[in-house]
Amino acid sequence: MMGAVAKPTIGVIGTGAIGGFYGVMLARAGFDVHFLLRSEFSAVAERGLHVDSAPYGAMTLNPVQAYSSAEDMPPCDWLLVGAKTTSNVDLAPAILQAAAPNAKVLLLQNGLDVEDSLRELLPDSLHVLGGLCYICVHREGPGVITHQALGAVHVGYHSGPAANEAARAAIVEEGVGLFRAAGIDSQAMANLHQARWQKLVWNIPYNGLSVLLGASTTPLMADPDSRELIKALMAEVVQGAIACGHDVPAGYAEHLFMVTEKMPDYWPSMYHDFLHKRPLELAAIYARPLAAAKAAGCEMPRIEALYRSLSFIDRRNT
Amino acid sequence: MMGAVAKPTIGVIGTGAIGGFYGVMLARAGFDVHFLLRSEFSAVAERGLHVDSAPYGAMTLNPVQAYSSAEDMPPCDWLLVGAKTTSNVDLAPAILQAAAPNAKVLLLQNGLDVEDSLRELLPDSLHVLGGLCYICVHREGPGVITHQALGAVHVGYHSGPAANEAARAAIVEEGVGLFRAAGIDSQAMANLHQARWQKLVWNIPYNGLSVLLGASTTPLMADPDSRELIKALMAEVVQGAIACGHDVPAGYAEHLFMVTEKMPDYWPSMYHDFLHKRPLELAAIYARPLAAAKAAGCEMPRIEALYRSLSFIDRRNT
Repeated sequence: MMGAVAKPTIGVIGTGAIGGFYGVMLARAGFDVHFLLRSEFSAVAERGLHVDSAPYGAMTLNPVQAYSSAEDMPPCDWLLVGAKTTSNVDLAPAILQAAAPNAKVLLLQNGLDVEDSLRELLPDSLHVLGGLCYICVHREGPGVITHQALGAVHVGYHSGPAANEAARAAIVEEGVGLFRAAGIDSQAMANLHQARWQKLVWNIPYNGLSVLLGASTTPLMADPDSRELIKALMAEVVQGAIACGHDVPAGYAEHLFMVTEKMPDYWPSMYHDFLHKRPLELAAIYARPLAAAKAAGCEMPRIEALYRSLSFIDRRNT
Repeated sequence: MMGAVAKPTIGVIGTGAIGGFYGVMLARAGFDVHFLLRSEFSAVAERGLHVDSAPYGAMTLNPVQAYSSAEDMPPCDWLLVGAKTTSNVDLAPAILQAAAPNAKVLLLQNGLDVEDSLRELLPDSLHVLGGLCYICVHREGPGVITHQALGAVHVGYHSGPAANEAARAAIVEEGVGLFRAAGIDSQAMANLHQARWQKLVWNIPYNGLSVLLGASTTPLMADPDSRELIKALMAEVVQGAIACGHDVPAGYAEHLFMVTEKMPDYWPSMYHDFLHKRPLELAAIYARPLAAAKAAGCEMPRIEALYRSLSFIDRRNT
């Protein structure tokens, strides 16, 4: 249902679990959403996008405004990037093709400084934002997504033509408004870099250990040794964030630990990447935080050991 | 060939790769060696013990003085214990049965303080010694052992009736003499505890990473990230040893690293334990060194992370 004010045109670049879920939610709320796909184009063009959501029920979007080439997409006011951080540099041509003048490019990705490499390849006229997704979702097959729990998106401004803090805040609020209009919890983040560090408090232990130990969240939270390891890894992330000058609210790690205990059993995205022999997002989630902390004089030895182990596994796997 | 002086009677408790290899070498040199076996008794009694050794060639001992019960063994002057540290407490009855008065019990095992739990269960009249085996050997099947490289045994006195340093040294030299008489490089260690710490510089990285990363020494030494991780783990062991008051010669870790590069590809014993779903020797190789270092005010965070990970894996595996 379209409102009185013209709704923005939205493009989804990389229609995996994240891009597909948020794209379907926005389309369902009446937004004009266009999906760029590669290997799954035919399947989605023929059979649509299906989301099996624990909180929202089964949702089908069919037909889908699906494209195999960004050249065919209409100019998009918002571009949601759901692709892996490992391919960010390769996405620039598609983003340039699909972007309306002064478009907002929102990276729905984990990790530190994921915007930087892409930013260098985009014109100054485009806004780049970061979005942190607190969600349990995975791709079940071509065009088929399972949404287990949660869903909030935290949005922050990275760089672009917004002249001042007020202009930046207005653009962030516009992004937050999109998600809220689709029934999704969303909030603005004043400091994107700090928010990315905070998200790492979850991603660093759970993503890596799921691959290293071949275990989802329920067994990881049930074993006394993996529990202690998770707590120790979380504490190192918090120390790294603080060393880099960021605030981490007191009890934040403990909060994430408790949230994970209450979550349904979940395989983090890095495990799915491992399983499908895709490159792991090690630069964004491990190497950059380690380098940033080290530059600030902070060692994170357990995280470094985890990163080295994952690098070995990744090199053998792909 | 028996010499003019009566040779000691030797018993092997736990005839796996280590016990089998050294037992066969000693028998081949003319010593009277008696082997205690459990599950492999019938196979060894029927077909003998076979060692396929890269340096020594193929060696067969048949018939074998094999026993399924320690009650049937003659009184042994030396008992070589090649069983896993995880079963040390359970070995006491067999040792008591097979030990001559004032017998020497030599634990050919890795890890810290592996003698302590057994010592408590033995009478004061028995000598307990520790032996560190620098060897690449594994059990191929019942009674069949592959010896890839190396073989030295370092012997030190742990506890027992030896009244003074000279008496202790004499017993250690007697043990060293047995191995040398069998053509095996052997040397006395003045400080067993220190020698056990030094051996951990190899065991802590390679045993654990072989299980964690499912990799033998060649790929571990070929990958830039596992190389850095091995070096960092070795450095932590050295720091732990020093914190506990032990000398580690300068360049010792670098030496072991270089030796490993020149070794044939090798799967450490912990990997074989993992593969055959036997309990991993985590207490001896990880938990005790971590506790000892911590008590001395030294954190070993990478080793702790490795230990926690291995504990998770071990609990799921057995």
